Amino acid sequence: MDEKPEILDTRLIAKSRLFGIEELHLRFTNGEERTYERLRTPPIAGVMMVPLLDDDTVVMIREYGAGTESYELTLPKGAYEHGEDWRDAANRELKEEAGYGARRMSLMKELTLSPGYMGHRIKVVLAEDLYEESLPGDEPEELEVVTWKLSELDRLIERDDVTEARVIAALLMTKRLLEKR
Amino acid sequence: MDEKPEILDTRLIAKSRLFGIEELHLRFTNGEERTYERLRTPPIAGVMMVPLLDDDTVVMIREYGAGTESYELTLPKGAYEHGEDWRDAANRELKEEAGYGARRMSLMKELTLSPGYMGHRIKVVLAEDLYEESLPGDEPEELEVVTWKLSELDRLIERDDVTEARVIAALLMTKRLLEKR
Repeated sequence: MDEKPEILDTRLIAKSRLFGIEELHLRFTNGEERTYERLRTPPIAGVMMVPLLDDDTVVMIREYGAGTESYELTLPKGAYEHGEDWRDAANRELKEEAGYGARRMSLMKELTLSPGYMGHRIKVVLAEDLYEESLPGDEPEELEVVTWKLSELDRLIERDDVTEARVIAALLMTKRLLEKR
Repeated sequence: MDEKPEILDTRLIAKSRLFGIEELHLRFTNGEERTYERLRTPPIAGVMMVPLLDDDTVVMIREYGAGTESYELTLPKGAYEHGEDWRDAANRELKEEAGYGARRMSLMKELTLSPGYMGHRIKVVLAEDLYEESLPGDEPEELEVVTWKLSELDRLIERDDVTEARVIAALLMTKRLLEKR
């Protein structure tokens, strides 16, 4: 199973300003052929920050999600062009969305959303040694900045406005990492 | 911020067999207006299982993802129609993808993928008291079933073929839940 299916054909079948839908024709190593649909992988990468004020306090934001039509308690994140340093992108997005910069940043993990039909990838970055600094963003309304204690992480995850898999994965990975320090 | 933006207009601007792309026009409570794009929320819900053979052994599958063009070590999951009981759907998908049924199932959390542009939701289900039973699925090739020890979860998360945010969130939530039992 280490040998991958052969991609016989890929075709863009629908697109908008932001999204593209591709149809791809695959031949698996056992000879089976399938036609799948997937989202086109964007020519940008994503970065999501876990900003720590101290070893128990994480900085989150409250943001409207047009997909779920609800406000979510989430982590600052953004996109950056390939070629841009992810540290620069992380610091810029952190300043725009949360009003902090970070002197220390470390890459925890690169996450995917739904490998079956999305190639999207986002780097999860632990941001520490924070300092207050804001940059103007393109948000339609000012984001509410919320701090939360990692010692009360289970209570956070139970909340109805905390649902994003990437955010929950990032916070739980952070908690384990800090416990091992 | 508890009052949500008003959705002035929603329009389907592109579609394929599986996907739809919507444009929506929003007015935030401060009067700011924006035009966003999002994926159409599918008329089905998702279910993802964390099948436990015992308190330290989780059943995973190795599956090709056409989005990332790679094999991923992931958890069994599937879709079900609204109206169908999620327990029935969970048991069916578990039998199709992993060759097990579960006598005990509990809902841990409902996760979203990317609230900004997707309304997709998936129920994370802890599946216990397993028994061997297979159902034929529609997979193009037989899925490799892999067991992993939760006591070695950190090593699993470090793997390059374990990237899916929902899977990592589900396994870390399971680990915490079991530690509290």
